[in-house]
Amino acid sequence: MTAQTRSSSRSGGRSARRAARAAALPDHLRPVRPGLEGGQYRPLGQQDMERIHAAALDALERIGLADAPESGVAHLTGAGCTLGEDGRIRFPRALVEDMLAKANRQVVLHGREPRHDLILSGTRVHYGTAGAAVHMVDVEGREYRDSTLQDLHDAARITDRLDNIHFLQRPMVARDIADNREMDLNTIYACCAGTTKHVGTSFSHPDHVADALEMLHMIAGGEDKWRERPFVSNSNCFVVPPMKFATESCEVMERCIEGGMPVLLLSAGMAGATAPSTIAGAIVQAVAECLAGLVYVNAVSPGHPAVFGTWPFGLDLRTGAMTGGSGEQALLTAGCAQMHHFYGLPGGAAAGIADSKLPDMQAGWEQMCSNVMAGLAGLNMVYEAAGMHASLLGFCHESLILGDDMIGQALRCVRGIEVTDETLAVDQIAEVCLGGAGHYLGTSQTLSRMQADHVYPALGDRSSPKEWAEKDKPDLVQRAVARKEEILAERAAARFDPATDATIRARFRIHLPA
Amino acid sequence: MTAQTRSSSRSGGRSARRAARAAALPDHLRPVRPGLEGGQYRPLGQQDMERIHAAALDALERIGLADAPESGVAHLTGAGCTLGEDGRIRFPRALVEDMLAKANRQVVLHGREPRHDLILSGTRVHYGTAGAAVHMVDVEGREYRDSTLQDLHDAARITDRLDNIHFLQRPMVARDIADNREMDLNTIYACCAGTTKHVGTSFSHPDHVADALEMLHMIAGGEDKWRERPFVSNSNCFVVPPMKFATESCEVMERCIEGGMPVLLLSAGMAGATAPSTIAGAIVQAVAECLAGLVYVNAVSPGHPAVFGTWPFGLDLRTGAMTGGSGEQALLTAGCAQMHHFYGLPGGAAAGIADSKLPDMQAGWEQMCSNVMAGLAGLNMVYEAAGMHASLLGFCHESLILGDDMIGQALRCVRGIEVTDETLAVDQIAEVCLGGAGHYLGTSQTLSRMQADHVYPALGDRSSPKEWAEKDKPDLVQRAVARKEEILAERAAARFDPATDATIRARFRIHLPA
Repeated sequence: MTAQTRSSSRSGGRSARRAARAAALPDHLRPVRPGLEGGQYRPLGQQDMERIHAAALDALERIGLADAPESGVAHLTGAGCTLGEDGRIRFPRALVEDMLAKANRQVVLHGREPRHDLILSGTRVHYGTAGAAVHMVDVEGREYRDSTLQDLHDAARITDRLDNIHFLQRPMVARDIADNREMDLNTIYACCAGTTKHVGTSFSHPDHVADALEMLHMIAGGEDKWRERPFVSNSNCFVVPPMKFATESCEVMERCIEGGMPVLLLSAGMAGATAPSTIAGAIVQAVAECLAGLVYVNAVSPGHPAVFGTWPFGLDLRTGAMTGGSGEQALLTAGCAQMHHFYGLPGGAAAGIADSKLPDMQAGWEQMCSNVMAGLAGLNMVYEAAGMHASLLGFCHESLILGDDMIGQALRCVRGIEVTDETLAVDQIAEVCLGGAGHYLGTSQTLSRMQADHVYPALGDRSSPKEWAEKDKPDLVQRAVARKEEILAERAAARFDPATDATIRARFRIHLPA
Repeated sequence: MTAQTRSSSRSGGRSARRAARAAALPDHLRPVRPGLEGGQYRPLGQQDMERIHAAALDALERIGLADAPESGVAHLTGAGCTLGEDGRIRFPRALVEDMLAKANRQVVLHGREPRHDLILSGTRVHYGTAGAAVHMVDVEGREYRDSTLQDLHDAARITDRLDNIHFLQRPMVARDIADNREMDLNTIYACCAGTTKHVGTSFSHPDHVADALEMLHMIAGGEDKWRERPFVSNSNCFVVPPMKFATESCEVMERCIEGGMPVLLLSAGMAGATAPSTIAGAIVQAVAECLAGLVYVNAVSPGHPAVFGTWPFGLDLRTGAMTGGSGEQALLTAGCAQMHHFYGLPGGAAAGIADSKLPDMQAGWEQMCSNVMAGLAGLNMVYEAAGMHASLLGFCHESLILGDDMIGQALRCVRGIEVTDETLAVDQIAEVCLGGAGHYLGTSQTLSRMQADHVYPALGDRSSPKEWAEKDKPDLVQRAVARKEEILAERAAARFDPATDATIRARFRIHLPA
């Protein structure tokens, strides 16, 4: 402790607190960070989880999955599945249990920089984007318009600057690229050129995977470097719920496995339409489908990194339309997180979805509800956590920026309550009350923990009504617009070096301006 | 089942769902209701709670509380406390434990109508208003103005119409009444004339309690009827943290106990100013203070209904200003709820506070975060749950109305995941997949549960971007304004009968127009 800080901590009060606040914190002392451990919230009891597991095994054995591709039939029957006369692949219980034993229990989703690596195990929590929105939300014009490649690249650049957005799974579709192959390749380019955080993407056809891998080898600086630290994962909708394989997606999956790309086994049933309407039933079906995917992956390549992606969505049964902002959605996701822990598998699910069309109060409560519950439930990968509106149809840059603030608070909740002799603070209470100052504002304990214990919002406003009026009543969304413009005016840090960029552009038609 | 509903459930699809939706549900089948059981979220381990308990007992024995009124000193030393030479009352461990054994473990906070009774025990959750805001938020003018008695009455009338706001503790101060006695009495009048739900209030001086009881006897139709079902409780800030009794409030408390009024023992420390800055330390001090209050109440009248009101608030340590919208606040409140269960005492704490000045996205995420966590933690009384802005300085009618929607979703989360053979739905999955329709939209299971399982928002918008544009892009806050005007245009249902009203007005100066 320097003489200067000693003196300011003695003086107490606001100036001391300001001085303490001014000092930057080393990473390990930051109040929140990726990979905090959740699990304090357990919506399911042990017996509930065992019943869900038993029901999923029952469904796999009795009902099985239709529509596996030829190659998948070979892999799966080779592993011990049966192919019925009805064309359905059925999974004996013992086989599922054997494959669970072979599965990778700690998956690392790499960033292009090691500081962005996501270590998926236990109840470690990470938040990021995801989805396939087809619209951009223009908050100033209150308009929905088609999303473009530039929008996607901008989302990547914004994500790169937000501490609490830990990964970028492609949240929207570049609708300005008509050719599917070009869209898939430009999606990877736009994401990786915008952020060095881990990127997730999907492929619209198995034939696009080889080209994508070629681009990824270029970005990595060689196939060996790519395979050592694969920084893009394949978000793979390998099932069409209920209980059918998505034939082409399975072929995509096989090629990604071959190319060393981690796979997100994504089962996105809609509770009440393509999955049972009950929360428990939707979880059973999602678990059954993802267990089928797990058997598939481990039949192709034992231990290949895979994320158990039970993503059941809610439905508004009055209209039959999807809804993601409900309490039912938060429970679906939290219940899934617990099933991941039941199996000890790295898992992911969807949270943070707003049904609201704009970043308004409804969006705030909808996004926080499922985000904080997913975190408290210890979900490894909280997908769709920021920016998603209109029940996944729209993505909003301003909302992504505000989501960073929101998720900061959710992460603080995940971090939980630290109980030690120091934090219990009986000696401090005695000191303050018995002849002390009668308050805790200037105590060394308060000053020393004011940064490490507290998450301060970047855009959230905590001023008094008087201060707020003096500042001309700043509008939250307008502040997010300004922050977006500030970020997008910076030089993009994650861009590839010029030689690599030229190589990529020589080989592929890149739609983003150089 | 009638022929008509049988036929519509066979037809499946949207029209069948609409028909099912049209039928009103009996109360016990409503998807959410007051008193749902939480407790699935436990931020503290058993050992953590034991350490907090031990630390609180330690603080009560070593530090004790200053400033008890003379009557309190008599009650407390009579029960076995010691009065030190430093003027502090100290509490032997054994005494606290004896008093815990005497305390009322199931408190009923009555409504004027029995259907609004709140049964406080275990992890049963209720949401309502509270606070002492001095401003009203005018959402249309984006202004803060002084709050009035009419504003308070309007809040009561709005609360009366909102299913998920279970009680009305006075959320704001009638600043247009200069005389404190008249303010206290008019506060009760304005609240009770607006709603038959349970009302909480405070008194600015012990001498006002007798008049208030006189008015309450009139409303009840006699003292015996009041004492049988006391429908107003006293929110009592009996301590000035850290560890000092609030002398006059203690005198208020004694008079309320005598008058048969349930007491909320409210300890409102600010973590970092009037309580330790750590979450655990702030909880320790709040628990110690409320245990002191519990000993006090039970020394005066064993078993008197009291709510264990550990209400620690957060502080923004950068500025020293209060903040209620943080993750730290949500943890403070959830940790307190667990301590209530540790003691088996009916308890309450604050959640749902927005720091934001307006009902915007920040307000949404702030209010949901602590509200849903309080509910999942099984807090009996979630105070300040709706309408509170600017870190408790402002109350907003529109936000109260939107809060009803928000809390509906939070309650759905509290209700949790039902796991039964029916909800696990394996037979339904088999039926749908093996030769069935291939989807669940028209199944009898989906139709039969579409109301009982799902909370539909009243104002929250779930339409698609296209439908939303066709509806002229409804603004959430404007819809809340319209709903407010609709409610306030109705004839107030809770008003007293004309004879009672005339009697009250003849005896007291009532500032609300008749």
